[in-house]
Amino acid sequence: MTNNEIVLGIDIGGTTTAFGFVDRSGKRLATGIIPTESQQPAENLVARLQVEIARQRATLPPRLQLKGIGIGAPNANYRLGTVENPPNLNWGASTNLVELFQRLYPLPVAITNDANAAALGELYFGGARYMKDFIVITLGTGLGSGIVVNGELLYGASGFAGELGHTIVDPQGRQCACGKTGCLETYVSATGLCRTTLTLLAERLEPSPLRELNFQQITAKQVFLAARAGDPIAVAAFEETARILGMKLADAVAHTSPEAIFLTGGLANAGELLLTPTRRYLEEFLFSAYRGKVRLLLAEIPEGTSAILGAAALIWHELEKSSANPRSPQQDQSNLQG
Amino acid sequence: MTNNEIVLGIDIGGTTTAFGFVDRSGKRLATGIIPTESQQPAENLVARLQVEIARQRATLPPRLQLKGIGIGAPNANYRLGTVENPPNLNWGASTNLVELFQRLYPLPVAITNDANAAALGELYFGGARYMKDFIVITLGTGLGSGIVVNGELLYGASGFAGELGHTIVDPQGRQCACGKTGCLETYVSATGLCRTTLTLLAERLEPSPLRELNFQQITAKQVFLAARAGDPIAVAAFEETARILGMKLADAVAHTSPEAIFLTGGLANAGELLLTPTRRYLEEFLFSAYRGKVRLLLAEIPEGTSAILGAAALIWHELEKSSANPRSPQQDQSNLQG
Repeated sequence: MTNNEIVLGIDIGGTTTAFGFVDRSGKRLATGIIPTESQQPAENLVARLQVEIARQRATLPPRLQLKGIGIGAPNANYRLGTVENPPNLNWGASTNLVELFQRLYPLPVAITNDANAAALGELYFGGARYMKDFIVITLGTGLGSGIVVNGELLYGASGFAGELGHTIVDPQGRQCACGKTGCLETYVSATGLCRTTLTLLAERLEPSPLRELNFQQITAKQVFLAARAGDPIAVAAFEETARILGMKLADAVAHTSPEAIFLTGGLANAGELLLTPTRRYLEEFLFSAYRGKVRLLLAEIPEGTSAILGAAALIWHELEKSSANPRSPQQDQSNLQG
Repeated sequence: MTNNEIVLGIDIGGTTTAFGFVDRSGKRLATGIIPTESQQPAENLVARLQVEIARQRATLPPRLQLKGIGIGAPNANYRLGTVENPPNLNWGASTNLVELFQRLYPLPVAITNDANAAALGELYFGGARYMKDFIVITLGTGLGSGIVVNGELLYGASGFAGELGHTIVDPQGRQCACGKTGCLETYVSATGLCRTTLTLLAERLEPSPLRELNFQQITAKQVFLAARAGDPIAVAAFEETARILGMKLADAVAHTSPEAIFLTGGLANAGELLLTPTRRYLEEFLFSAYRGKVRLLLAEIPEGTSAILGAAALIWHELEKSSANPRSPQQDQSNLQG
């Protein structure tokens, strides 16, 4: 790799799609953003992106060589190059996005889901730069996770490994949008924090400004502000969220034994209000062989840029795997297409 | 590898230590067994083993070349080559067993714990021969697990990944010998089945021959025989065991997404009495992306031979990693010493 090489990282969301040209050090050289227009077919998005990408590329020095394209998207299947039944996009059962891009760009293209991209971003450009085994947890509307083992994202037999948001906290517990009951993300996520707050408002009698908000109105931000101001209901809601997160992270450690777990996404902005009690519960629930050996940290890459940097890291990682081990069995792992 | 190459697999238990010379196809060519004498230091065991190993080797054709030694032992640390605080051996905090063997044998030596060895045995000689991602669960006095990802045992940052027996079923639940509360192995293991049976005898009123047995007397075998004869308490104990196992295996799938999960160890001898309800609960608790894609199977290698074959597979695996990838980064993964 030379200093003249760049990649394109693309983050496809339900409302907007952002992209950036990124060099090997994680520097974004030019960026753009367009509406996703979720009711249109994927071809429409890709065509509009092509125009905007060309416009931004024209602002860069011609000596810079574009080496590949990485894409982060909801419900992306890394192995197949597809996006499958995306919840906020009217794209149908399966769209081969890698193929769509390769019709326009004769380059290596790879795709993965948002949480996996966040994990690779942290590995390449963030707090996991010197780690081989770690987990990134994204705490937004739901709970996503990307698990890195031996420096490689864990995909498993299905290509969908690392869905910690759908591990079970309580088989008789809360309804999850996935159709199951008691999934972790119904308790630990921005939405989960609000559900816990409402439950506590029903169970307890302390006065609280949160009593003036209905189910539609309450947000994680409001619970955070109330907790910071000492509201006992909001404080208890964070404590309960931390207890469940700490318990399930202890389970995660008993599976893959990471060196660190990184939190990112909206709810992670609560910072020490969430981290401090979660660390305490994590240690309490950890099996003795792991105690004192797992760090719980905030992701280093800011939330606003992590999606583009993660998508860029994905394709840097693919390019480096294929150039480092041209004949090794590891190449079977690579998903480079093009 | 030629047909003239063999390895030595050693299984160290609290009561006896067994070994066997094993070829690449998994055939045991000569075997031996001696008392472990758990109160003696490890040096004593290794010295007595050397005598018996020499005696058995003399029965083999001289053309067979011994290429390495694999060891399965409780609380073994693969990375360090040590056995640490073994529960049934008076060996102290840490014994470097790899070093002890290498003083006598100038060969590659590797060590891992029992459940990891069982997983490698299944990978090399059993039902996982064509798999890259699977989990082996050993159901004995406790619950052990070996997780294989991309054809490699998962060790994680600590070297102790895959302790599913100490994931949490109920934070207010049963006391575990590890010092925690509500660990999976207090519910799902031979011992766990007996504890569940006693609880059900207290909760329910159906007549049962098991009412004549006290805590000391009841065994998993008796609960199995009673369940097979239709005893409602014993049937309910298996159902509850299967429910908890299915739920926690669904969590395990959400971490590493295996193609199959294999059960072995004493309690797995219950066969379909345990497998059928566990399969039902597993599917029920699985996240939709995994449903219908994970097989729950009995391990193919018989319990009596799996420890020696697993230890042999460990060292075959190390030998093949180092000869296949002499320059690849994967070599960092190898723990060949000698």
